[in-house]
Amino acid sequence: MLGIGKTGWIEKDAPVCGPLDALVKPLAVSPCTSDVHTVWEGAIGDRHDMILGHEAVGQIVEVGALVKDFKPGDRVIVPAITPDWGALESQAGYSMHSGGMLAGWKFSNFKDGVFGELFHVNEADANLALLPDDVDMAAAVMLSDMVPTGLHGVELADVQFGDDVCVIGIGPVGLMAVAGAKLRGASHLYAVGSRPDCAALAREYGATEIINYREGDIVKQIMELTHGKGVDRVIVAGGNAEETFAQAITMLKPGGRIGNVNYLGSGDYVKIPRVEWGCGMGHKTIAGGLMPGGRLRMEKLASLLSTKRLDPGKMLTHRFNGFEHIEEALMLMKDKPRDLIKPVVIL
Amino acid sequence: MLGIGKTGWIEKDAPVCGPLDALVKPLAVSPCTSDVHTVWEGAIGDRHDMILGHEAVGQIVEVGALVKDFKPGDRVIVPAITPDWGALESQAGYSMHSGGMLAGWKFSNFKDGVFGELFHVNEADANLALLPDDVDMAAAVMLSDMVPTGLHGVELADVQFGDDVCVIGIGPVGLMAVAGAKLRGASHLYAVGSRPDCAALAREYGATEIINYREGDIVKQIMELTHGKGVDRVIVAGGNAEETFAQAITMLKPGGRIGNVNYLGSGDYVKIPRVEWGCGMGHKTIAGGLMPGGRLRMEKLASLLSTKRLDPGKMLTHRFNGFEHIEEALMLMKDKPRDLIKPVVIL
Amino acid sequence: MLGIGKTGWIEKDAPVCGPLDALVKPLAVSPCTSDVHTVWEGAIGDRHDMILGHEAVGQIVEVGALVKDFKPGDRVIVPAITPDWGALESQAGYSMHSGGMLAGWKFSNFKDGVFGELFHVNEADANLALLPDDVDMAAAVMLSDMVPTGLHGVELADVQFGDDVCVIGIGPVGLMAVAGAKLRGASHLYAVGSRPDCAALAREYGATEIINYREGDIVKQIMELTHGKGVDRVIVAGGNAEETFAQAITMLKPGGRIGNVNYLGSGDYVKIPRVEWGCGMGHKTIAGGLMPGGRLRMEKLASLLSTKRLDPGKMLTHRFNGFEHIEEALMLMKDKPRDLIKPVVIL
Amino acid sequence: MLGIGKTGWIEKDAPVCGPLDALVKPLAVSPCTSDVHTVWEGAIGDRHDMILGHEAVGQIVEVGALVKDFKPGDRVIVPAITPDWGALESQAGYSMHSGGMLAGWKFSNFKDGVFGELFHVNEADANLALLPDDVDMAAAVMLSDMVPTGLHGVELADVQFGDDVCVIGIGPVGLMAVAGAKLRGASHLYAVGSRPDCAALAREYGATEIINYREGDIVKQIMELTHGKGVDRVIVAGGNAEETFAQAITMLKPGGRIGNVNYLGSGDYVKIPRVEWGCGMGHKTIAGGLMPGGRLRMEKLASLLSTKRLDPGKMLTHRFNGFEHIEEALMLMKDKPRDLIKPVVIL
Repeated sequence: MLGIGKTGWIEKDAPVCGPLDALVKPLAVSPCTSDVHTVWEGAIGDRHDMILGHEAVGQIVEVGALVKDFKPGDRVIVPAITPDWGALESQAGYSMHSGGMLAGWKFSNFKDGVFGELFHVNEADANLALLPDDVDMAAAVMLSDMVPTGLHGVELADVQFGDDVCVIGIGPVGLMAVAGAKLRGASHLYAVGSRPDCAALAREYGATEIINYREGDIVKQIMELTHGKGVDRVIVAGGNAEETFAQAITMLKPGGRIGNVNYLGSGDYVKIPRVEWGCGMGHKTIAGGLMPGGRLRMEKLASLLSTKRLDPGKMLTHRFNGFEHIEEALMLMKDKPRDLIKPVVIL
Repeated sequence: MLGIGKTGWIEKDAPVCGPLDALVKPLAVSPCTSDVHTVWEGAIGDRHDMILGHEAVGQIVEVGALVKDFKPGDRVIVPAITPDWGALESQAGYSMHSGGMLAGWKFSNFKDGVFGELFHVNEADANLALLPDDVDMAAAVMLSDMVPTGLHGVELADVQFGDDVCVIGIGPVGLMAVAGAKLRGASHLYAVGSRPDCAALAREYGATEIINYREGDIVKQIMELTHGKGVDRVIVAGGNAEETFAQAITMLKPGGRIGNVNYLGSGDYVKIPRVEWGCGMGHKTIAGGLMPGGRLRMEKLASLLSTKRLDPGKMLTHRFNGFEHIEEALMLMKDKPRDLIKPVVIL
Repeated sequence: MLGIGKTGWIEKDAPVCGPLDALVKPLAVSPCTSDVHTVWEGAIGDRHDMILGHEAVGQIVEVGALVKDFKPGDRVIVPAITPDWGALESQAGYSMHSGGMLAGWKFSNFKDGVFGELFHVNEADANLALLPDDVDMAAAVMLSDMVPTGLHGVELADVQFGDDVCVIGIGPVGLMAVAGAKLRGASHLYAVGSRPDCAALAREYGATEIINYREGDIVKQIMELTHGKGVDRVIVAGGNAEETFAQAITMLKPGGRIGNVNYLGSGDYVKIPRVEWGCGMGHKTIAGGLMPGGRLRMEKLASLLSTKRLDPGKMLTHRFNGFEHIEEALMLMKDKPRDLIKPVVIL
Repeated sequence: MLGIGKTGWIEKDAPVCGPLDALVKPLAVSPCTSDVHTVWEGAIGDRHDMILGHEAVGQIVEVGALVKDFKPGDRVIVPAITPDWGALESQAGYSMHSGGMLAGWKFSNFKDGVFGELFHVNEADANLALLPDDVDMAAAVMLSDMVPTGLHGVELADVQFGDDVCVIGIGPVGLMAVAGAKLRGASHLYAVGSRPDCAALAREYGATEIINYREGDIVKQIMELTHGKGVDRVIVAGGNAEETFAQAITMLKPGGRIGNVNYLGSGDYVKIPRVEWGCGMGHKTIAGGLMPGGRLRMEKLASLLSTKRLDPGKMLTHRFNGFEHIEEALMLMKDKPRDLIKPVVIL
């Protein structure tokens, strides 16, 4: 990223490796919709000459003097969120907000991202995880952001055995929310989206019904399917601030929860419809949050891949080989051709 | 209530007592702001010839054949919310929504309220509680609604030891939220309000600072007092749908919670400011709900009065004796003179 | 059951149907190990001329005057636990203990069970669930006890995404705990048992390793498989009070939880090893509890069968047709032949 | 500590200050019963020439190069538990077990304690907290261990509004558990102990009844006071592994919780009575854990002192001035004269 709306390659000095840190060479990366937001919508403000990317598997090149558990040559999963673990927010259980709201997100936000020859990882012992031998490297790139973000939506919505769940959005994050909701015990699982390839994969990941918003109001469709009862949980992984939450609140039962993991990039307000929210009294809880990162999370999620509980690799519709294809993969994410779900670039 | 905007006395047949039910004669009652909303704002829709009131202590006159734990003559606390305990919503832990959102609220909503010579209580064994001898009857009327609603705000906000808490609104519910937040381990406790008598009582109940919205933006005041950090929890017990939540979200730390117990009577949308909500990613959870009712809750809260942990009686600024004063007390709630906090009528 | 150690058929008057109740004719039943404990070990004390059985699908024959949602002819799932929903324990969230510890368990405990021509169900609207057309009747009998008990073990242990879980015992309850742990996001899933048919089914339900206690100390086996780290959660669905908890505590990580759903029939004490429990300081939480019953639970679990998330029918190794085979099925449970997992009798 | 059973003064080199660490000079310290266990009972094994003590307020003498928030001269509260915040256990929410069960406890366990001229604090930014000007230094020493341990018992037992709570043990930790239970909304609060000064202070901190075990079986006394119902929560802050848990389980209602914060120094097993535990089915949850340490916790608890919610200073029955009195204070803790609750030494 050279500036808002402009991408290209730049030369930079190698980052400095502090005593707790590591320098990592990417082995496989994937561009994310938020990279697109960052460049073409200026979502996080103006940035100049910043290296993009926050989804990667890599190989350690250098470690600081206080790093104990990793050494050069280790192949590692790199989470998009790399907290400062001693921060007060981390001590409170919200490491993704260490140092300030959302400040656990550092790559291609406060510092250069992973689409470079080398990138810097803070608190390496606490933020990297070894890539298990039995996990495919391309699939593992999905552990950086798509898997933890989708599954965090499931956690925020607090899905329980036998719950009826609606997942709004079936891009990569929404698909992981669908897979995660199934993996958490949802029964009826309504996935809202319109692209056929995504819909087919949503079914494969566990959706029992696909709700196509092009075929009518999604609330109406869901109320019909649930015989007027609505759903127990809604996971928001797509849509916008203006309409989506109104739909989610309306289809939700009293006592239900919304878990938002969609980055809301525009609009002044998220609008909660007063009457459908029970005039503030309906126990329809609204939660939303950035994915948890760090080593423990990566190890736990990698173990879901090792044990074949979850296969994010099915989302990888486009595979490239070589550094020079990163820009092409990024443009794919920007243009979203009909058959794209998620690209990966092996370096 | 004769219709929207009209009050008066009417003659009605005594209610029928089903096998699980009880008929109760009120001994002490209190009008509530929501009675005012019901009559003069038509908040719950048009109602005709409905007896108002949902805050009472009473004496049992008749019990159904299946009632085991109560008998005529027993003095009882009557919660504003009297759930159907077998309903699916109750089984899910949300008895206040048994039979539909907010439908656990029956008095002066779906059926006649407590401002009559006799009133009907469903599932008496599950919804009434004996008035302990060591609890003042007038104070006990506050157990019907003010105490459980205020304390539920504290539960929804999930106050923890040493939390900084803001309570917006210091009417009777807000005051009980202040007392409840102290009783739950809050340290700094910012109470937002302007009426001097309420402010003085808020301090007595545990507020460490009074934030007067007439003296400037409350968010700014709180950010200054907290050195820019904001608060851990916000309890909303006043304000409106349009502005209050925006203030609450803005002053809240990432990882914080809002607990709303204010009945939002107007406005199409509750507005959540997108950026301050972390673009949906800030882990600022928004919860809101009707108070839990029923016998267990009443017994637990009454025990707080018996053991002198909580004294809601301090709020009773106006005491009347005799049925004929109910209308006067209601008008007081409508007109809110400067020295009013809460009236009670002993019958 | 005629008395401890004696079974046979007896003639009894039809039970009386109260206003909230239903009388139900069994359509399919299954004997449970606890029936065996009741008769041959006198586990719940001396009982005379009591009809056994608490696992059934049935057809409604009569309903009380206050029953609204069911009518004669309806085919229903009958939970083993049928709470009194208005009881204080139910209001506190522990309906299985309504009226006293374990007192939500009524069939073949406080009253006649389901192995009769007719049986009585209290609070029919709150305790029965319609059998969905798309659910196999024999499999549905497993919803009475095996499924909710196994899955409650998973809830008590609070399994999270990517957790390493050990399930001790792979009888029917343990198998449902295995299936439930997978359905809740466990990754490595160690199932402890020795019978080959159960072991094979445990693998099918999601166990990644079978730990055979005949092949050495199970703690040692698990510590080796986990590289000395131990597991995040242990679900106890077998074993005894004397040894099993010591094993469970020892293999558990600090911060872990034990969820017990094994009825401990003998021994004076459950023994928790002091040092391995961190001298009381290790945050190894020990939870254990009777399954939640009632209608909502049955509906939610039935929806897991409708949506093919769970198939308890695989456990039904022995199927009988006709009332006269109940005793034979019971004896099977007593003698536990090598190829038995669970029998069912279609009536 | 020179060895088991032997104390005295030794000369040691000053500890080395790593880049994240601080060296601190104690300003006020207090000996703890666990120091007594360490020396005279060898509770944590044989230690030689180890400096004792883990309760202190101090002044920073030196900080490492990476420390940002503290500087020499700052007066700080030092928690007994100083976790490694990046450890996997910390990421899982159990920082007190960072690096292994109980390994967050470092002072006078894995390294020299605070009863020296200088002591070492790991991860200073994350583990120290500034001493507020409005908090008495002697009272603040109680923030190192007594306050967080007592209050953690309340958290582990999960005290709710109006709960009946029993606190077993009214030494300093038990007294803080009493104060904490009141501060968390307990109503009836039964404190078990026999020493008159402790009993008087327990009443002052909120106990509604003192149960003297010298006057009869404590379970029987509590069952009488609760009309046979038992209590909702038990906090164990005294007693032993052999008997105390049996008492706690027996007096606990189904659905209740035990929170243990008593270091269990002897006995092979903690014994849980099978029948009273509902044969494993009673939902009587047993939790126990080491106090959480670190900066956030210290800041939150200090704010309870600043806002006058809690005054641990009332426990300080013996105050000394001067380094040379530390041994005298330690001997007091060992001998426990009748009028001792807790000593403090101002340096």
